[in-house]
Amino acid sequence: MPSLAALNEASRPDFVAALGGVFEHAPWVAERAVEARPFATVAALAEAMRAAVEAASDADRHALLANHPELAGRAARDGAIALDSIAEQAAAGLDRLSEAEYARFEALNAAYRDRFGLPFILCVKRHGRASLLSTFEARLASDPATERATALAEVFRIAAIRLDALVTGEGGLKTTGRLSTHVLDTVAGRPAAGIAVTLLEWVSDTHAVVVARAVTNADGRTDAPLIGGRPVPIGAYELRFHIGDHFRATHPGLPEPPFLDIVAIRFGIADPEGHYHVPLVASPWSYQTYRGS
Amino acid sequence: MPSLAALNEASRPDFVAALGGVFEHAPWVAERAVEARPFATVAALAEAMRAAVEAASDADRHALLANHPELAGRAARDGAIALDSIAEQAAAGLDRLSEAEYARFEALNAAYRDRFGLPFILCVKRHGRASLLSTFEARLASDPATERATALAEVFRIAAIRLDALVTGEGGLKTTGRLSTHVLDTVAGRPAAGIAVTLLEWVSDTHAVVVARAVTNADGRTDAPLIGGRPVPIGAYELRFHIGDHFRATHPGLPEPPFLDIVAIRFGIADPEGHYHVPLVASPWSYQTYRGS
Amino acid sequence: MPSLAALNEASRPDFVAALGGVFEHAPWVAERAVEARPFATVAALAEAMRAAVEAASDADRHALLANHPELAGRAARDGAIALDSIAEQAAAGLDRLSEAEYARFEALNAAYRDRFGLPFILCVKRHGRASLLSTFEARLASDPATERATALAEVFRIAAIRLDALVTGEGGLKTTGRLSTHVLDTVAGRPAAGIAVTLLEWVSDTHAVVVARAVTNADGRTDAPLIGGRPVPIGAYELRFHIGDHFRATHPGLPEPPFLDIVAIRFGIADPEGHYHVPLVASPWSYQTYRGS
Amino acid sequence: MPSLAALNEASRPDFVAALGGVFEHAPWVAERAVEARPFATVAALAEAMRAAVEAASDADRHALLANHPELAGRAARDGAIALDSIAEQAAAGLDRLSEAEYARFEALNAAYRDRFGLPFILCVKRHGRASLLSTFEARLASDPATERATALAEVFRIAAIRLDALVTGEGGLKTTGRLSTHVLDTVAGRPAAGIAVTLLEWVSDTHAVVVARAVTNADGRTDAPLIGGRPVPIGAYELRFHIGDHFRATHPGLPEPPFLDIVAIRFGIADPEGHYHVPLVASPWSYQTYRGS
Repeated sequence: MPSLAALNEASRPDFVAALGGVFEHAPWVAERAVEARPFATVAALAEAMRAAVEAASDADRHALLANHPELAGRAARDGAIALDSIAEQAAAGLDRLSEAEYARFEALNAAYRDRFGLPFILCVKRHGRASLLSTFEARLASDPATERATALAEVFRIAAIRLDALVTGEGGLKTTGRLSTHVLDTVAGRPAAGIAVTLLEWVSDTHAVVVARAVTNADGRTDAPLIGGRPVPIGAYELRFHIGDHFRATHPGLPEPPFLDIVAIRFGIADPEGHYHVPLVASPWSYQTYRGS
Repeated sequence: MPSLAALNEASRPDFVAALGGVFEHAPWVAERAVEARPFATVAALAEAMRAAVEAASDADRHALLANHPELAGRAARDGAIALDSIAEQAAAGLDRLSEAEYARFEALNAAYRDRFGLPFILCVKRHGRASLLSTFEARLASDPATERATALAEVFRIAAIRLDALVTGEGGLKTTGRLSTHVLDTVAGRPAAGIAVTLLEWVSDTHAVVVARAVTNADGRTDAPLIGGRPVPIGAYELRFHIGDHFRATHPGLPEPPFLDIVAIRFGIADPEGHYHVPLVASPWSYQTYRGS
Repeated sequence: MPSLAALNEASRPDFVAALGGVFEHAPWVAERAVEARPFATVAALAEAMRAAVEAASDADRHALLANHPELAGRAARDGAIALDSIAEQAAAGLDRLSEAEYARFEALNAAYRDRFGLPFILCVKRHGRASLLSTFEARLASDPATERATALAEVFRIAAIRLDALVTGEGGLKTTGRLSTHVLDTVAGRPAAGIAVTLLEWVSDTHAVVVARAVTNADGRTDAPLIGGRPVPIGAYELRFHIGDHFRATHPGLPEPPFLDIVAIRFGIADPEGHYHVPLVASPWSYQTYRGS
Repeated sequence: MPSLAALNEASRPDFVAALGGVFEHAPWVAERAVEARPFATVAALAEAMRAAVEAASDADRHALLANHPELAGRAARDGAIALDSIAEQAAAGLDRLSEAEYARFEALNAAYRDRFGLPFILCVKRHGRASLLSTFEARLASDPATERATALAEVFRIAAIRLDALVTGEGGLKTTGRLSTHVLDTVAGRPAAGIAVTLLEWVSDTHAVVVARAVTNADGRTDAPLIGGRPVPIGAYELRFHIGDHFRATHPGLPEPPFLDIVAIRFGIADPEGHYHVPLVASPWSYQTYRGS
């Protein structure tokens, strides 16, 4: 991973070789941004690349959009897209769709291309499965000028994440969010350790899939954030806390079944770069949660 | 529905005709309890019937147990059981089992009869589906003397509910519980009206079925308890509050998806005759619940 | 206490004798309202009296305002005011002021009379001590037309409370509020009984006086509302719950001093006719409150 | 401040000069502990000094206790006690007692000396004013053997704090606690910045004194703990949050006076070396707190 300092000193061909893939099939963005060196921060480098895109001809900008791969499209299935795109689509689960889901995406892709003459572009790392589909549908109803601006904004988001993963240095971009939790036992007045926690994503109104599992440590937290170091995908989630086992062990004499056994907290994420702290403050007969910090 | 006063005055045959079905296929319990008239309270009448059973011969008591129908058994399927039993088993959903579930009950019934020489007796109105099965399995592991006492206690519970439904008067039995809710909006400092609430019962670890739907009124409560006028079946439940729509309407500018949309509160019932008040105290970014009164 | 029905049937002199004191030194209001009989509701009677005032000449209305006694004024000290006014001022503690407080009121009364040519009129039952003074000061800064309308509105509020206390019947006025509480123990999942509760009113920024004491009953509530059957005076209050003793008794092994001993909830009342339910939901290490219903 | 490494290498006189004051008027403790060098941790050094005291003759140990200054005693008033003791007593406010309080201490000191033949010894940094007096009274009722052990334990606590302040190095002692807070706004789903927070200590049942003031920062916390870097004195406290101003600014249309203006959280500290996190989670109509971590 090159440092910003090294990129500031690198030969032009090395600079372009390092950053040519930040914009899909568009090494010319790096070629033009190189003129603005040196960059004091990673954000300044990103800004220079954005400026290069905005200063480009309409034809160049159109090509930039047109060369993006479709989501879950035939090219992606056949491996005929950029490596970064393969990884991004795989992270969103788009390489593991059912035939029905592929068919849904094919239909949406076709409708979009029909309407706008471009592939649908979305920074998939920022969206859960349900959000991806609902955003796709919402944007199909947009007008061409607005949609073009939206697509370009998504290109910049994709580029920011790629750049952030590629370059080390001061003044980085804010491309990651965080989901964390904390379990407090209000009978003991202490963090609750050893609580099994499961995070699920609601991929549709009726279907949730497990996306993380953890156990609280002595401080009532998980050793690592439930989601961290990347955008928290927009979507609806559910945290399940197996608090019943904890109170069975610490608070003999509770009835069976206990009033609280698995506590389920359903919540939505709308800001992928935000910090969502979702604590559970519980006794055997009560609990509360809130968006903390 | 006869009053206690009328029963105190009734001829012996009329008394027995009225109460002969309180104990399944055992009108002799009413025949013997009649001697203890008059009864000041319904509870005193129930106590006299219980005393008659306890003063009876071992053979009579054994027959009382032996004449009970099996749960979801062949006799129940064929309609060859007492009307009260039909209704009780139907209320517990035992008339709508899948073939696999029937087979499970048949196997449990056979194992129980093999081990104890009696049908399995349970006051089914006090149990949800999952509790019914887990109680059946737990009791199979009991020893004969304990199990006989447990079966007799269940017979008294069944009789109490039947008696309570049959006789009006002072000093009734406590055979019903209650499940209620209340939604408070802590942004407005007022009850939240118009909130759709769904109550589900978890019939297995992975499957929940809807058992009630309601909408909160101007006081943030449901017009009638979610469950009332009967025992609250032992089991695991989930209340779903569609609070997102309320805050969308009253609190413009919330992100989409909202932090809180459907709030799900999972809780267990262990005391069918208790009052479970399960309020939701919520803002768009926090909520709490507790067992209230 | 006459019923509305009796007043509808009464002779004119009896009607006026009964209601002549509703407006201070102004029996003419009753004399004119009598024409509008019969009244279907107490509210309709009140409305007729208000209409009589509004239809009166400016001179009559001015006299109505001018004949009101000053708050804590010399006439009140000397007993030279209407009996209802004596009781109302006494309820607000205005008969037990220190010399300094009397002096403060004398100064305010003089300033008000200087500026507006009228006595300061306020429905004192709706104000706590601090609110009474701050309202007095705020109204001194008002302009004459606004202030005259405000004074008249207060006259109607005083009349409504007097009428409500005087006449029984359908369709009464809403002249009373309520302050209630409820203590829940989230370790036991039950109401907390036997909790000593003290209600204080903050009469200044640094001084609070006890206005009620109670002990919670088996349902965790007080047998009667802390304030009820009258307006809840506008002001700042504090509820003190002696919860430490409860948890010492039920939860051995807590440290001394306990984390929670006396829980103090400070809250304001702005709507004297509202219902303020201020519950305490507590464990030894946590608590919450909210405006409930 | 010498490092542990330097003390391990120091000449014996230098070692004793550095640590001779850790035990009041008892440089012999350091003289004997020096034999156990080198010490891997500060805790090991403390343990060696404790062992030296425990291995000493009864006469030496008695002298160690006898040479301690009385609390708020004549010697302390006259400045005739060790510098560390002067600072410790001043931190507890014992240098600013009223004449009545001095008299109270004199009486207790005299009673204690009468009963046990020793000065009363307490690690004053671990006690608030009220706790100091109640502990004094409780220990007066103890028996001589228990009391002697208690006094010695206090001597070790005093020594631990002095040592911790004196020596840098690995494996330090746990002689400090922490009191922190955090304000969350559940209407905005964000930390509440700019909230004025006052910490008071209840020095008697009716009198509280301010011990700290702070304002919350952008993360809803105070820049420094309210108490930190020292033991949190045992006692009863109150945190006052001026939350009303915050909601007035962010939530127009609230009534005056608001339901919540100054939120007062009263809590006790029993573990001076613990971390007490006391958050406020609030909307204009509700709040909650708990001992967090």
